[in-house]
Amino acid sequence: MSLDALHDLTLTGPNLLVETAPEVLAAYATDQGPVLAYIEPLAVVWPTSVADVQLVLRWASATGTAVVPRGAGTGVSGGAHATGGCIILCLDRMNRILEINAQDEVAVVEPGMINADLNAAAAAHGLMYAPDPASYLTSTIGGNVATNAGGLRCAKYGVTRDSVLALDVVLADGTLISTGRRTFKGVAGYDLTSLFTGSEGTLGIIVGITVRLRYLPVEIRTIAAFFPDFPTAAAGVLAVGAARVQPAIMELLDGATLTALDEAHGSDLRARGDALLLIQTDGFGAGAEADVVRSVLSELGGTVSTEGAAEAERLVELRRHSRGDAVPDQLRVGEDVAVPRSALVRYVAELERMARQYRVNLKVVAHAGDGNLHPTFWVQAADNGGRERLDAALDESIAVALTMGGTITGEHGVGQFKLHWLPQEQRAEVLELQRRVKAVFDPAGILNPGKAIPGDPH
Amino acid sequence: MSLDALHDLTLTGPNLLVETAPEVLAAYATDQGPVLAYIEPLAVVWPTSVADVQLVLRWASATGTAVVPRGAGTGVSGGAHATGGCIILCLDRMNRILEINAQDEVAVVEPGMINADLNAAAAAHGLMYAPDPASYLTSTIGGNVATNAGGLRCAKYGVTRDSVLALDVVLADGTLISTGRRTFKGVAGYDLTSLFTGSEGTLGIIVGITVRLRYLPVEIRTIAAFFPDFPTAAAGVLAVGAARVQPAIMELLDGATLTALDEAHGSDLRARGDALLLIQTDGFGAGAEADVVRSVLSELGGTVSTEGAAEAERLVELRRHSRGDAVPDQLRVGEDVAVPRSALVRYVAELERMARQYRVNLKVVAHAGDGNLHPTFWVQAADNGGRERLDAALDESIAVALTMGGTITGEHGVGQFKLHWLPQEQRAEVLELQRRVKAVFDPAGILNPGKAIPGDPH
Ligand SMILES: Cc1cc2nc3c(=O)[nH]c(=O)nc-3n(C[C@H](O)[C@H](O)[C@H](O)COP(=O)(O)OP(=O)(O)OC[C@H]3O[C@@H](n4cnc5c(N)ncnc54)[C@H](O)[C@@H]3O)c2cc1C
Ligand SMILES: Cc1cc2nc3c(=O)[nH]c(=O)nc-3n(C[C@H](O)[C@H](O)[C@H](O)COP(=O)(O)OP(=O)(O)OC[C@H]3O[C@@H](n4cnc5c(N)ncnc54)[C@H](O)[C@@H]3O)c2cc1C
Repeated sequence: MSLDALHDLTLTGPNLLVETAPEVLAAYATDQGPVLAYIEPLAVVWPTSVADVQLVLRWASATGTAVVPRGAGTGVSGGAHATGGCIILCLDRMNRILEINAQDEVAVVEPGMINADLNAAAAAHGLMYAPDPASYLTSTIGGNVATNAGGLRCAKYGVTRDSVLALDVVLADGTLISTGRRTFKGVAGYDLTSLFTGSEGTLGIIVGITVRLRYLPVEIRTIAAFFPDFPTAAAGVLAVGAARVQPAIMELLDGATLTALDEAHGSDLRARGDALLLIQTDGFGAGAEADVVRSVLSELGGTVSTEGAAEAERLVELRRHSRGDAVPDQLRVGEDVAVPRSALVRYVAELERMARQYRVNLKVVAHAGDGNLHPTFWVQAADNGGRERLDAALDESIAVALTMGGTITGEHGVGQFKLHWLPQEQRAEVLELQRRVKAVFDPAGILNPGKAIPGDPH
Repeated sequence: MSLDALHDLTLTGPNLLVETAPEVLAAYATDQGPVLAYIEPLAVVWPTSVADVQLVLRWASATGTAVVPRGAGTGVSGGAHATGGCIILCLDRMNRILEINAQDEVAVVEPGMINADLNAAAAAHGLMYAPDPASYLTSTIGGNVATNAGGLRCAKYGVTRDSVLALDVVLADGTLISTGRRTFKGVAGYDLTSLFTGSEGTLGIIVGITVRLRYLPVEIRTIAAFFPDFPTAAAGVLAVGAARVQPAIMELLDGATLTALDEAHGSDLRARGDALLLIQTDGFGAGAEADVVRSVLSELGGTVSTEGAAEAERLVELRRHSRGDAVPDQLRVGEDVAVPRSALVRYVAELERMARQYRVNLKVVAHAGDGNLHPTFWVQAADNGGRERLDAALDESIAVALTMGGTITGEHGVGQFKLHWLPQEQRAEVLELQRRVKAVFDPAGILNPGKAIPGDPH
């Protein structure tokens, strides 16, 4: 029986851990994404070395067992949900820094390294690993790469892909390959590194990551501006752009989000405006940029924090941690579209229209610098027909984003949850090409099946 | 006969131009890369629309004719060289800007648009298209995307890939697909946009390009620093990094390059030092950054230009245009390796050792911020055995770069010329994967055969 053979692997890889206890299977059955169909894995497997991962993949290939890679399980699209008859391959014990080279400005890490831990180590050299998803305290670099995670400061510093130089990847059949290079530039061969980045565990298991580090900014300035309404705040985003200032962070919070923060923290944000724009400038020009930002936003009618006010920084911290925890008596759905920057106002107006039409609640925060929005719709759990109205609003919000030139997912990934929307964004030929690309790397289809790209339609 | 059928296509696509005149075939037989075996194409074909490109590709697929796409032919790796029985598909008449949206900070262009023309149009909005290969006055955006071109200011702003949001691509069978998205962020599906970027015409014909624009810097400061020797100048590169300043441009020129510039322009650069470091800072922090750079380089013993000195800017312009024209009585070979930044000094010392050992001349310029070097070796044409010693030095320079963790090509691409070095950098499994990826897009192998990745070894 194949599970016995899996246990037997620990004889060859003595530090490989294989767990099949019910409570372990339950704990690793899902990530933080919506659960469409709850399935438990056959086993949860923790490798501690590249050789362990190769062992497991060879076994999985031989037995035709599906492998769902998992970092910290903070994904919100169901990319790490268990699927039928799968094992979960949990990388979080492979969490060492293999190298930091401050002169080359690179770090080499194992996939289970926590984002914040890498940043702490880099900071000792005056460097940072720029991509900072709000989950930076818990999510892994491997998971970040597999989802091509965004973050707050990617308006200026780019997303995960822009910091990944090279990858070590174990393919479905256990072959270990290296892609990319240690140098900042390089164009030898196809860009397989970018292909694996964001592939959500469907093309290979990422077991080693070389990243480019950036300079810790010498100075950071933070500005909070309250606006009487959302459209004016969104106009502020464009006005900062028109002043040719590139902030590191530019977050937009609507009135309902301010109310939610007030309820959670006893603050009085909502009383001060119906929308809040949080901007951080950094680097040698931080002060000059902040001055421009302040004057641009004041002119638009914003109530702008004074220089050096500590509150603005507190608000950014609050925003970093504002991803709502589940509320027991509410049904919530969130999405993650991105739209062209100029469409922000129109898109949020459409969202508000949908909320009225479908009688659901709405709050919106946005990585406004990138046009990436996180709207949340919710109803009371007891609301009869609430689930259906919620889903209708959600579906329409996706469709409308696409008509505005947007995408169904700005940073969270397609996973399992957004798969049914993908054909609205990408045509059949493009989906078919991706299926065939997957078949090159994983001909038997054992790697995270049913995630990221639709399976064979035939 | 298939060439008649090609001419017949112009009945369906009346603006499609097909030329078979001998002088045209000769003019389009090669790009600016070294010619290993001179071959003329069957015809040169100029489409003026996407539909034209589809027509041609359908014909090529039906007849099994190889298609070599070509932008401006400024490539230096032979990527646009004609191969046996091919047609050249020249995109330079598809050169319109389809859209510039200043609020969204994007532009949509046809592939034959000249890099400088796009920048001129963007500048009217206070924006720029950041990637600036030294060939910016002549090379096309399509060619830049197909080679993932670098440039001077990519130390700060990234290479072409970092500015490409979406592509329209005609596949080998004439199918038109779209990859990517108009938004800055997006993670739906695999990153096919990056896969096509740098694929050197071997996966599809790029017929439409959506790029992200950046802000024209409010301020630019330029610093020139002469050093008594190359190692100290290279130490300057690391010292600027250690001061956590990210220049937009950081170019390093060795003594032989200064001599060559003096000979060409009657200047006295070589008398002022044995190495020159040119640095440009830009943006709101440009002044503060320039102050730090000046003090760091002075401390190291550099002779640093005073603030606002016009000469420094002139030197950057000189550097931009310093790619040596062919000298009739010399044999020259250049390469394009990149090494980790900390290896710059050691690598150049090795190059000097090789130059002595093989009795060849050497000069080196480097995009030092990225560790990307352009060494040129040369001998007199009349030199008996010169060609062999030149090739020996070149081969060794590649091998040594690889042992230092470098790559065979930082920005010029593999093309035809560097193909025999690729297996030194990438293992057989990785080459085989790339062959299979190519087969997904171009099963019959008609797109730019014999370029970018090695063909089937069997
Ligand atoms: C509070 C909170 C805030 C968040 N904020 C952000 C944000 O700002 N930006 C953002 O982009 N996301 C955010 N997320 C989503 C999530 O944190 C990211 O997607 C993160 O990158 C996932 O990392 P992880 O280690 O938890 O991966 P997991 O959730 O374990 O896995 C994510 C996906 O990657 C695959 N995978 C994981 N590791 C590997 C590997 N080594 N090799 C191959 N495939 C692998 C999995 O199969 C799965 O498909 C947030 C989530 C939470 C809960
Ligand atoms: C003076 C000089 C300076 C240079 N400086 C730099 C520099 O700083 N940085 C740098 O990176 N390069 C530099 N180069 C090299 C060259 O300019 C770049 O590689 C440039 O990107 C090529 O553009 P092109 O339009 O001339 O393309 P071509 O030379 O015509 O083609 C280049 C490759 O792309 C393919 N191709 C072209 N168009 C398409 C298309 N639409 N679809 C699919 N494939 C296509 C071709 O088949 C070929 O493989 C320089 C060259 C010269 C002569």
